[in-house]
Amino acid sequence: MIHDDQNTTTSLDLAKIREDIDSVDQQIQQLINRRAKLAEAVAKAKFASEENPLFYRPEREAQVLRNVMQRNEGPLSDVTMARLFREIMSACLALEAPQSIAFLGPVGTFTHSAVLKHFGQDAIVRPLPTIDEVFREVEAGSAHYGLVPVENSSEGVVNHTLDCFKASHLNVIGEVELRIHHQFLVSSNTRKDSIKQIYAHQQTLAQCRGWLDAHYPGVERVALSSNAEAARRIRNEWHSAAIASEVAASIYELEILHGNIEDNPENTTRFLVIGREKVPPSGNDKTSLLISAHDRAGALLEILAPFAKHNISLTSIETRPALPEKWAYVFFIDLEGHVDQENVKAAIEEIRPLVKEVRVLGSYPIAVL
Amino acid sequence: MIHDDQNTTTSLDLAKIREDIDSVDQQIQQLINRRAKLAEAVAKAKFASEENPLFYRPEREAQVLRNVMQRNEGPLSDVTMARLFREIMSACLALEAPQSIAFLGPVGTFTHSAVLKHFGQDAIVRPLPTIDEVFREVEAGSAHYGLVPVENSSEGVVNHTLDCFKASHLNVIGEVELRIHHQFLVSSNTRKDSIKQIYAHQQTLAQCRGWLDAHYPGVERVALSSNAEAARRIRNEWHSAAIASEVAASIYELEILHGNIEDNPENTTRFLVIGREKVPPSGNDKTSLLISAHDRAGALLEILAPFAKHNISLTSIETRPALPEKWAYVFFIDLEGHVDQENVKAAIEEIRPLVKEVRVLGSYPIAVL
Repeated sequence: MIHDDQNTTTSLDLAKIREDIDSVDQQIQQLINRRAKLAEAVAKAKFASEENPLFYRPEREAQVLRNVMQRNEGPLSDVTMARLFREIMSACLALEAPQSIAFLGPVGTFTHSAVLKHFGQDAIVRPLPTIDEVFREVEAGSAHYGLVPVENSSEGVVNHTLDCFKASHLNVIGEVELRIHHQFLVSSNTRKDSIKQIYAHQQTLAQCRGWLDAHYPGVERVALSSNAEAARRIRNEWHSAAIASEVAASIYELEILHGNIEDNPENTTRFLVIGREKVPPSGNDKTSLLISAHDRAGALLEILAPFAKHNISLTSIETRPALPEKWAYVFFIDLEGHVDQENVKAAIEEIRPLVKEVRVLGSYPIAVL
Repeated sequence: MIHDDQNTTTSLDLAKIREDIDSVDQQIQQLINRRAKLAEAVAKAKFASEENPLFYRPEREAQVLRNVMQRNEGPLSDVTMARLFREIMSACLALEAPQSIAFLGPVGTFTHSAVLKHFGQDAIVRPLPTIDEVFREVEAGSAHYGLVPVENSSEGVVNHTLDCFKASHLNVIGEVELRIHHQFLVSSNTRKDSIKQIYAHQQTLAQCRGWLDAHYPGVERVALSSNAEAARRIRNEWHSAAIASEVAASIYELEILHGNIEDNPENTTRFLVIGREKVPPSGNDKTSLLISAHDRAGALLEILAPFAKHNISLTSIETRPALPEKWAYVFFIDLEGHVDQENVKAAIEEIRPLVKEVRVLGSYPIAVL
């Protein structure tokens, strides 16, 4: 056991404290290597008992991280400590079996950041140009897992990702949430003291309204199809600014005149992790369903009733046309709970006769960090 | 003390191994928080004894990382273990006093990767549009440290960084080496089966010669001013490819047809960390000198003689004109050793009367990772 020596922490003897740090570092290192050895033992045990063992266990990882955060007494924050453990687990997992992650590239985007946040720096990353290709790589087994954007609080739901699920039998095995910041951008040509228009996606303008009212009152706000389009457009305009990401500033070579101007600093984007297997319950899970309905009008209310009856919270509902068939719709529903729970099972069974198809896209741990 | 239980690692009981992992995790967590408390004690001791204490100590960090690598017994690799310790130290340092790092932006570039590699994920990053601004921010005290590229094995020395040192009194306090990969890029228009030209910087073409001879024998290779220029140019050409970085692929929306095609996988770029203070010896250091000579012809040989005499290894020599003065030159010399070492001191004193000025830009730990 490790004893926390209060006398040490009040000592002013720097050399003595540094000796203590060195000794603590040696113990940390021994323990991390011991953890890695235990991870190798897990791999051996799995190979002995299964033909194609799984090494990445999302439910187990979520439990470890939750435990780390719950028992954390500081001084390091819960989030910092969980991040360090994510890296330690990532290093140990890479030793058992390096995991390759396909994602919507290119490198340097928010999706790449989400991959690093979820899988740590020891995963092998494979940036791909389209969401379809991410699905295909994982289906073909060329990548262990895939990561795709699904909800962007500034640009809404990424419909293309939802559409890919309609044609795929992959499972959702995890979710990642990433905090997103908005930047106030100008080009090198811009007359900074006479900005006449500010371009951005409508939701972004709304998310920065307080800041814009305070700093650019009376300046016209113009809603465009995307923030990237706003950034692209101001390159050749002299009296315009755009609101977009740091990545867009980079791509379009714009200057960040004001950073992080969003009114709500909790502004996030959500990503889904896709894989070929199913994830057992972690104790705090979400389930994504794809429901194919005969008809939109009235169908949704009927479908929602069993969830209410079984006391299941829904966290998101999206509607997509089920083309090519006319008058049919597909609903994507996220709910709290795991399909192995009795109430979730019961609700799904009650919905089944009301619709053309209910498909469980996956049950997976709610994002920990 | 922690005992490594060999029986555990051969046991096939997965649940038992997981219990062991949980117990190891608890100990690691306690120790990391104990380390953070000791770091806080260091901060307190420093505040008690100094008016403007330094929290980031490059020589101490280098020593810790070297110790970690030297005593490492695996199974995790030395580099992986050192990376984990960099993150642990970064988290502890952020608790003492968060460090802000100015760098040549934008985010998502190799320089940003170098900042993360050297300072860990808990540093506050400040991307700036030019190298001059990085110097100014650090001089003004608006950022604790700055990070700028200095040698790029594909594009040679970054002269602009060297020129900034001529007008600045900042010190070099560290170096970072980053492995760089080359990508074979095409645009969506490119006819992949009839590529007639391959564009890149001359050094890049040389670094990929073996791969190009094997995969594109007989295809014309065209040397351009930079790899970024090569990437830009192929956007609108149908029969051309470029060799450039993943970041360039991202900025110019190009497809990576073949990844990591460099013949030598050890291809690196070097960055310097700049700051306002000097760094004490770490035991394995480098020193950067700026020497202003009266005349180029003959001057260099005279200058180099004392280094040979005192058995000092030079790792790099660069020559820059000392404009606006005609017929005067500035040499940038990197050598192995610290200015506090007798032989380095002696060599510098012998050179001093031969030249207009010798300035020690800094002594700093040789890159550990």
